[in-house]
Amino acid sequence: MYTYNSLLNFTKNVFRKMGCSEKHSEIIADVFLAAELRDHSSHGMIRIKDYYELWKAGRININPNVRIVHESPSTAVVDGDGAVGMVTARKSMEIAIEKAEKSGTGWVATRNSNHFGIAGYYAMMALKHDMIGICLTNANPLVAPTFSISRMMGTNPIAVAIPALNQPPFVADFATTPIARGKLAVAEKKGEKVAFGLVQDKTGRPSDDPAILKSGGSMLTLGGDRLHGSHKGYCLSAIVDIFSAVFSGANFGPFVPPSVAYLPVLDKKVGEGTGHFFGAMRIDAFQPADEFKAKMDVWIGTFRSAKPAEGQERVLIPGDPEREAEERIMKEGIKLVPAIKDDLVAIAKELDVDFE
Amino acid sequence: MYTYNSLLNFTKNVFRKMGCSEKHSEIIADVFLAAELRDHSSHGMIRIKDYYELWKAGRININPNVRIVHESPSTAVVDGDGAVGMVTARKSMEIAIEKAEKSGTGWVATRNSNHFGIAGYYAMMALKHDMIGICLTNANPLVAPTFSISRMMGTNPIAVAIPALNQPPFVADFATTPIARGKLAVAEKKGEKVAFGLVQDKTGRPSDDPAILKSGGSMLTLGGDRLHGSHKGYCLSAIVDIFSAVFSGANFGPFVPPSVAYLPVLDKKVGEGTGHFFGAMRIDAFQPADEFKAKMDVWIGTFRSAKPAEGQERVLIPGDPEREAEERIMKEGIKLVPAIKDDLVAIAKELDVDFE
Repeated sequence: MYTYNSLLNFTKNVFRKMGCSEKHSEIIADVFLAAELRDHSSHGMIRIKDYYELWKAGRININPNVRIVHESPSTAVVDGDGAVGMVTARKSMEIAIEKAEKSGTGWVATRNSNHFGIAGYYAMMALKHDMIGICLTNANPLVAPTFSISRMMGTNPIAVAIPALNQPPFVADFATTPIARGKLAVAEKKGEKVAFGLVQDKTGRPSDDPAILKSGGSMLTLGGDRLHGSHKGYCLSAIVDIFSAVFSGANFGPFVPPSVAYLPVLDKKVGEGTGHFFGAMRIDAFQPADEFKAKMDVWIGTFRSAKPAEGQERVLIPGDPEREAEERIMKEGIKLVPAIKDDLVAIAKELDVDFE
Repeated sequence: MYTYNSLLNFTKNVFRKMGCSEKHSEIIADVFLAAELRDHSSHGMIRIKDYYELWKAGRININPNVRIVHESPSTAVVDGDGAVGMVTARKSMEIAIEKAEKSGTGWVATRNSNHFGIAGYYAMMALKHDMIGICLTNANPLVAPTFSISRMMGTNPIAVAIPALNQPPFVADFATTPIARGKLAVAEKKGEKVAFGLVQDKTGRPSDDPAILKSGGSMLTLGGDRLHGSHKGYCLSAIVDIFSAVFSGANFGPFVPPSVAYLPVLDKKVGEGTGHFFGAMRIDAFQPADEFKAKMDVWIGTFRSAKPAEGQERVLIPGDPEREAEERIMKEGIKLVPAIKDDLVAIAKELDVDFE
C-alpha cells in the first residue's frame, strides 16, 4: 500500500525530470492520483509508463504553448501544442469556466492534445464555481459502428458534473461502450471469458473472448447489438467524436493517434492530435444557485429512495461509487500490482527519482 | 394512403377548431407530419387523439403566453404556460438560435410544457442557420434506474443535428432506452414476445413480456443490465431529466405529468409541467462554417465506408434511415392503420372538420 502523498510526489517528480514545469507536473500528478482515488486505476499509475515512453519517443511536447486560436463570447478553440493531455485539458476547462462567468456558458473544443486521464476530473472543476461541468474526448479506435466490423471510434467518454446543496454532487463519467477496455485486459489475464454483447470477432460474430481485439475483433457500442440499441451507443460515440475533433480540428474516428508508444504514428492525418470538448454552465444563468442546488437535493433524494430490485441493496446516484472509493482509498492507501510497481521502479531508476 | 398535404391540413384544422391560433396550429401540424415522414409514426397521427383528450380535460392551454422568465447572454429559461409542447418547443429553440447568433451558443431550459413530438425536429431547426442543434426532453416515468424496480424516468430522448456540406446532415434522435415504448405495444398487439434485456418484471427479474408494464414491470435503460452498461444508460437518462427539469423548474423523475388524459394528474408536483432543454451552437464560433462542413463530409464519408459485418449491406450514418423514409413517404403517401383512422374520423366529426 502506498500513501496518496507518496505517489503524488513521485508522479510529480517523474514529470519534472521529463522536463515539465513545476505547475504542469503538479497538474498531471493531481489527475493521475484522482483516477487512483476514484478507483479508476485503469487511468492511474498504470498509465505513467505510456506517457514516459511517448515522451522518450518524442511524441509529447513537455514545453507546450497551450493557447486559444479562435473564440466568441461563449466559445473557444484551444490548440494544445502536443502537450500532455492533462495540461491541455485543465487549461481548456479553465477557459470554459471563464467564458461561463461572463456569458452564462462556456464551450471549448481542443485539438492537438493527448490522452488526458479521467474525463470526470475536468467536469468536476466546474462544481466549486457553482457551475455544471461537461467533458468529452475521443480516443484510439477500437469500437465498431452498428452493422460494421471496422474499428472507427474510441471508447469516447462523457462526463457531466452537477452540484447539489447538502447532497454530494451528481457526477456521471462513463465510456460509450458497455465496458471499459481495461476490463477486457483483466479478464484476459485471468483466463476468463467475458459476457456476450461486449465484443465481436473480425467477421462481426458475437464473441466472449476478451483477447479478440488482437485477432481483428472490435468492441461494441453501448447497447451491444441493434436489437438492444447499439445504434444509440453508436450515435453517442459519434457525437463525442465530432464535438471533440471536428469542432476543434483534431483527428477523428479511425485517425485518432495512439496513446501508447508501442503503436506507430498513423500515416494519415485529418487534423492535429487528439481532440476534447469542455463545457461549463453557470447555474444562475438558469436559476438562483441555491434554489437549483436545493432541487438537486430533492432529485438525488428521490432517486436514492427508489425501490431496489430483489437481491439488490440500494440504488446508486452517479458519483456515489467513486466518492465512496475516494474516502476509503485515501484512508487505506493505494495498492499497486507487482507489474506496475516494477515499471515505476524502472522509470524511477532511469530518471533518478526516488520511489517510496 | 393519405397525402402529406391532406393530413397536414387536417391536423392544422383540428387544432384551429380546438382554439389554437393559425400560427400555432401550423407549427403543431408541421411537427406531427414531420414524425410521419421520418417514419416515427409513434409520434405522429396516432398521438392527435391524446392531445385532443388532454384539451377536452382542460389539461392543455391553447392560448398560452410562452415567455422568457430568466436569461443571460447565452441562456434562457422559458415558461411554456401549459401550451401544446410543439408551440413551447419551437419558440424555445428559436430563442436558443437567437442567443447563439449573438453569443456563439444559446441554451434554453423550458418548463410548464407538454409532450412535443419528435425531439429531432427542434434540433434540426438549427441546421439552416449553420448551427448545431441539440434537444432533450423528459417524459412520463416508465424506466427503472440500474438495480431498481421503481419507474423513475421517461424514455428521455437526445437529439443532435450537425450540418455537412455536400453530404446530408448528421441527425441523431434516440431514446435513452434500448427500444421505444411504441415497439412494446406493437409486439403486444401481435401476440409476440420481445427480446430479453428490454424490460423487467415487478421484482426486477428479466422478462420477455411486452405487456409487463401493465403488471408493475418497467423498461430498462440503454445497456439493459449492469454487466452490459445499464448504469451508463441510467446516467444518460438522468442527465436528460436534470437538464430538462431541474434547470427549468419543471417536474422531474417520477413526477413528470402524464401525456395522456386517461392517466390522472399526479398528486405531487415538484415543478411546472414537463421540461425540455435546447441548445444551438454557431459553427463559426469554433471554425469557419464551410471548413467545418467540409470536414463533416470527410467524417461522414469515412464512416459510410466502414466495412459491413457479414450479412450486412451497409453502415449507416445517424439520420440516413429517416431521410430515406422522408423521400419515400412523401412520394408514396402516409398509411394510417384502421384504428387510428377511426379515431381521426371521430375527432373530425366532433369538431366539424373535414377528414379526407
